[in-house]
Amino acid sequence: MKARVHIMLKDGVLDPQGEAVRHALGSLGFAGVTGVRQGKLIELDLAATDKTTAEAEVRAMCDRLLANTVIEKYTVEIL
Amino acid sequence: MKARVHIMLKDGVLDPQGEAVRHALGSLGFAGVTGVRQGKLIELDLAATDKTTAEAEVRAMCDRLLANTVIEKYTVEIL
Repeated sequence: MKARVHIMLKDGVLDPQGEAVRHALGSLGFAGVTGVRQGKLIELDLAATDKTTAEAEVRAMCDRLLANTVIEKYTVEIL
Repeated sequence: MKARVHIMLKDGVLDPQGEAVRHALGSLGFAGVTGVRQGKLIELDLAATDKTTAEAEVRAMCDRLLANTVIEKYTVEIL
């Protein structure tokens, strides 16, 4: 079973990396970009065959290792 | 208009960062993880109002700056 995790900084948390990308895009002539936020995308191959178990397991992984829940939010998608 | 870009290493390209995450998850007791790939997630706020124009613009951004198309693949999603 495959899972995909999206991890982004919470709204309101400064994202200097995204800001740098926005500036770079502006320098390249892409004027219509008003905001950029950069996050992480993690794809996991899981041995679990049950969707509910898999999602609970991935959420535990996010809380314990993958995301810094103080400043980051995550969404889990089971494929 | 918002756009979301998923950037992952192409299949077959070694992903040491993902491998490190897999090891760390194993050490934490998550034994059922057989593979991890880590990529980037970029969310863009665009001034463009037309979906087709926005997608073409974001694809140009990926080719020129956001993704290294030699080793990375990307998907664009207009929200």
